[in-house]
Amino acid sequence: MDAETDELAEELGERLGERGHDVVCGGLTGVMEAVAAGMAETGGRTIGILPGDDRAAANPHIDVPIATGLGNARNVLVVRNGDAVIAIDGGYGTLSELAHALDLDRPVAGIETHDVAGVEAVDSPSAAIEYVESVV
Amino acid sequence: MDAETDELAEELGERLGERGHDVVCGGLTGVMEAVAAGMAETGGRTIGILPGDDRAAANPHIDVPIATGLGNARNVLVVRNGDAVIAIDGGYGTLSELAHALDLDRPVAGIETHDVAGVEAVDSPSAAIEYVESVV
Amino acid sequence: MDAETDELAEELGERLGERGHDVVCGGLTGVMEAVAAGMAETGGRTIGILPGDDRAAANPHIDVPIATGLGNARNVLVVRNGDAVIAIDGGYGTLSELAHALDLDRPVAGIETHDVAGVEAVDSPSAAIEYVESVV
Amino acid sequence: MDAETDELAEELGERLGERGHDVVCGGLTGVMEAVAAGMAETGGRTIGILPGDDRAAANPHIDVPIATGLGNARNVLVVRNGDAVIAIDGGYGTLSELAHALDLDRPVAGIETHDVAGVEAVDSPSAAIEYVESVV
Repeated sequence: MDAETDELAEELGERLGERGHDVVCGGLTGVMEAVAAGMAETGGRTIGILPGDDRAAANPHIDVPIATGLGNARNVLVVRNGDAVIAIDGGYGTLSELAHALDLDRPVAGIETHDVAGVEAVDSPSAAIEYVESVV
Repeated sequence: MDAETDELAEELGERLGERGHDVVCGGLTGVMEAVAAGMAETGGRTIGILPGDDRAAANPHIDVPIATGLGNARNVLVVRNGDAVIAIDGGYGTLSELAHALDLDRPVAGIETHDVAGVEAVDSPSAAIEYVESVV
Repeated sequence: MDAETDELAEELGERLGERGHDVVCGGLTGVMEAVAAGMAETGGRTIGILPGDDRAAANPHIDVPIATGLGNARNVLVVRNGDAVIAIDGGYGTLSELAHALDLDRPVAGIETHDVAGVEAVDSPSAAIEYVESVV
Repeated sequence: MDAETDELAEELGERLGERGHDVVCGGLTGVMEAVAAGMAETGGRTIGILPGDDRAAANPHIDVPIATGLGNARNVLVVRNGDAVIAIDGGYGTLSELAHALDLDRPVAGIETHDVAGVEAVDSPSAAIEYVESVV
């Protein structure tokens, strides 16, 4: 993850916390950790739904680690537990989450992520939050 | 669930909350709700790992509902996310949780529940907490 | 697993195969392998639902290995895919399967296994098959 | 599903069966059923990994139905149990499977499906099979 993505993710966490939202993420490193760090700045609660069987694998900013032992099948649980999904950057794991989210009729905003029909492409954390708040 | 079991479960929740523990349970009614109600009295945090796909199915005392959509396979997640397990009463779902807990090497205390080798049979919430705190 | 249990399990597989049944099991070693070996003698089809993410972990007598990557949560899938359950011997994993089976209203016969209300205790493979065929 | 997609899927099943491959699919209707019907013409074995808890929900051409009760989390199991993935057409569920497959390093061929980096776009069942056989 480059520095710009890291900053975007942390800013997203700060904005979501300021707005009083909980965040549900995959609980590990990268974007998941940067968002959780931003949330921690503002007191928001971050739930990390982990692929492995050890809660201690969660990054240090996760308030509620959930160890599933389900491997990548936990991606479905991540999106199922949000009212909306915001994706930043991301590889194939993120793409699977976008797909599951759209399959579950969750509104999805994306910042510099996969170009998928149904994902609202936005260019900032504030725009992402504005979009999902408007449609949930 | 009879009134005595309900009281035991609520008392267990109160004692666990007073001791500063989180509780992870299945999030639905009966013992799960009574424990969560007791926890709510004392400010403790209760995580409810639900079998269905709707967080709104959680009982009103659950602080962190997790909708899994996994059906009974979620029982494994319930016990995996605790350092120890305390069972009260219970049917076959509870028996599966005791078995998974022992399989995962979690210490298990049981109050008026299934007679399974490896489960420490105790007769009160306080004794259950004393046991699991002594072995974790 | 002692030699007697191994023989019982292999005989159970032979009898089930002769009667034209499929077998669903956990796909690994011990009783699971002995039953599958017995089935292989008689041409029956054995499905192995594995906890890990590699089909190659199945024992050599499994005709249809299914890699779940779900860990012990796969125990629920094992019993869900049978019309009835026959347990031989077994530790906590087997106990969890008995419990899930009874929770799913599957008839359950047990040979030298856990003493659980609802499990029909029998003393031979033939008696186990007779019982489950009579109630399915 | 339009008639052309149905024909493509059935032809894919026939070609895979002729080549001696097993097929693993989601077990339900649409492309899943058409591929299984094609496989059935040529004697190939089709495994259907179902989202629900009832094997009877499988389409009539499925040889080995596996009821998971996992909902969409079963999509991960579908791709995990193939050495390669061939997608035809498809909505968000299929997109999630492509993503999980690429995440698991499975080779993926696609016929008139989502445009995803890493998916080999081909225009016929034969070309799809040629591609996946060449890389597995």
